[in-house]
Amino acid sequence: MKIAIDAMGGDYAPMEIVKGVEIARDRYQDIEFLLFGTSEQVKPLVKDWSHITLIPTTEVIEMGDEPVKAMRRKKDSSMVRAANAVKAGEADALFSAGNTGALLSSAIFLIGRIKGVDRPALATALPSFAGENDQFVFMDLGANAESKASHLYQYGILGSFYASHVLGINDARVRLLNNGAEEDKGDEVHKIAHQLMKNSQSFNFLGNVEARELLEGTADVVVADGFSGNAALKATEGTALMMLKQIKQAIMQTGLRGKMGGLLLKPAFKDIQKKLDYNEAGGAVILGVNAPVVKTHGSAKANAVANTMGQIKKMIEKNLVPDIRTYIADHKDELQAAKNELQSQISE
Amino acid sequence: MKIAIDAMGGDYAPMEIVKGVEIARDRYQDIEFLLFGTSEQVKPLVKDWSHITLIPTTEVIEMGDEPVKAMRRKKDSSMVRAANAVKAGEADALFSAGNTGALLSSAIFLIGRIKGVDRPALATALPSFAGENDQFVFMDLGANAESKASHLYQYGILGSFYASHVLGINDARVRLLNNGAEEDKGDEVHKIAHQLMKNSQSFNFLGNVEARELLEGTADVVVADGFSGNAALKATEGTALMMLKQIKQAIMQTGLRGKMGGLLLKPAFKDIQKKLDYNEAGGAVILGVNAPVVKTHGSAKANAVANTMGQIKKMIEKNLVPDIRTYIADHKDELQAAKNELQSQISE
Repeated sequence: MKIAIDAMGGDYAPMEIVKGVEIARDRYQDIEFLLFGTSEQVKPLVKDWSHITLIPTTEVIEMGDEPVKAMRRKKDSSMVRAANAVKAGEADALFSAGNTGALLSSAIFLIGRIKGVDRPALATALPSFAGENDQFVFMDLGANAESKASHLYQYGILGSFYASHVLGINDARVRLLNNGAEEDKGDEVHKIAHQLMKNSQSFNFLGNVEARELLEGTADVVVADGFSGNAALKATEGTALMMLKQIKQAIMQTGLRGKMGGLLLKPAFKDIQKKLDYNEAGGAVILGVNAPVVKTHGSAKANAVANTMGQIKKMIEKNLVPDIRTYIADHKDELQAAKNELQSQISE
Repeated sequence: MKIAIDAMGGDYAPMEIVKGVEIARDRYQDIEFLLFGTSEQVKPLVKDWSHITLIPTTEVIEMGDEPVKAMRRKKDSSMVRAANAVKAGEADALFSAGNTGALLSSAIFLIGRIKGVDRPALATALPSFAGENDQFVFMDLGANAESKASHLYQYGILGSFYASHVLGINDARVRLLNNGAEEDKGDEVHKIAHQLMKNSQSFNFLGNVEARELLEGTADVVVADGFSGNAALKATEGTALMMLKQIKQAIMQTGLRGKMGGLLLKPAFKDIQKKLDYNEAGGAVILGVNAPVVKTHGSAKANAVANTMGQIKKMIEKNLVPDIRTYIADHKDELQAAKNELQSQISE
């Protein structure tokens, strides 16, 4: 299998990207890596060229670039060239730690949506601290600022496939992020989405979930509109970071007693921090496009990059994208019915 | 001053409500408490009747009741009777730990909106762990599942008044919760709201804030639409609770070493927990109605109830509601202009 790598995207690119690719190359024997990047910068970093090919590019999409414009204008950028390689069938998947919006645009406009999927969405696996499984799929994390009920319905299908194929969770328990447990909660979009999802034959819908229970393992797939999904994810991350920081500060401020306590609890804290640090385990996936496209955190270091290659390998090996494509094609009547039902509810 | 108390709402009502009122009565000499509740249940709980009057009611709005229906049908409920007392001018403020939706309905339909305020909203003070001030105002927490840009604009005014009058923060730094820092981020509602707020003469707008920075003290008032505000608040609460639980579990599981560490760090943890436990300090306020209406957490115990009385006392003493009313009346052209601008942007 071949993975197209945007070697220039991310806070520590190309250094940490190349390092991560080399770790992954040593770890997984069957991946060919196509490195897209500025020759003078990337070439000196590669220690061993086996299974690695450099495709020289001359432009770089920066973090601050306007996504769609950058994707359209910087045609010789590492990201656009890598996406075009996937489009041309020269690579099976796309990796980047760069500009999320530009990667979304590249995925949607260059690699293309799966026929029948209206809005590809960003998904990630987050830790569950209780319940049956260690992780759950959370989506949409902000690919779409405005969502229709039928989009949320489709996320249920996409998320369930990701849960079964990549996390190994069959018959995933799907819930809708909403501001209350009852089915009439939320705005119109969420009320209608709840009804569509409740009647779905495509996944196992268990009702709403509130953001308070996000990490409690009551769902394997949590479907959210991109705006509030983004807010809930960032609030979760911000709070976790803030608490770890507060605890460290408190330990430092309580003198010898605190420092001794901190030392004794170090292994326990490490465990929690590790579980929380889901960015280390892989990246956010753009579900609903014609190939695996994965975005790691901009601040990802080599090890996170290497782990993300493992995640991409799994997506390819398990046939995630072809299986979604086949399912959607075989169930287009059901998806259309969901859209029609939505239409009839709106016109009522 | 007189506070109308719904003695029957909340998980521990009427016991903890009555206890809390008695603590507050001993603490603050100038408050008269009107207890609305079922006579047989409330009467035996009151130890000292000074400054406390019981107004017997026969019905109770339950947590599971449909809010508007309950408010309309249970006319002799403790909550509706207490709200009507405020409406009739027999009390200056309304307190309840009961059904939030029913309290919102009672506040809006019985006590009434301030003229010019389109959507009263739920606000609470949350802790800031960094920055200039210890607390910030976060609103709307879910009073309105659907928001227009002009509502968000009005929240900026309401929140700034609460910051100055109750938290003592003048010229409050107002930010809009959005999924990115740039002004073109978010859906249409948030894009337009940003423009309205940027041009406001009524408050000090500093741009967007992401949910990740919520607790970092970069704003004194964070304005959110009720749906994502609710999600961000609950994600914050859920994550904080989950982390404290995980740390406790880790301490218990690491044997003697962990237990010793936990013991040494107990004071440090207590500090953090106390800061996080903002529900203990007071309740959520319905801003934009014609009297202070405050909802404490359903699980509030006596001490939280008593603290909430202090919060209400401050709102009354500082003239929060009259000052908002005067300001809105004096600036109705500005508010109308915001709505017109909104209209012109939509029809473009």
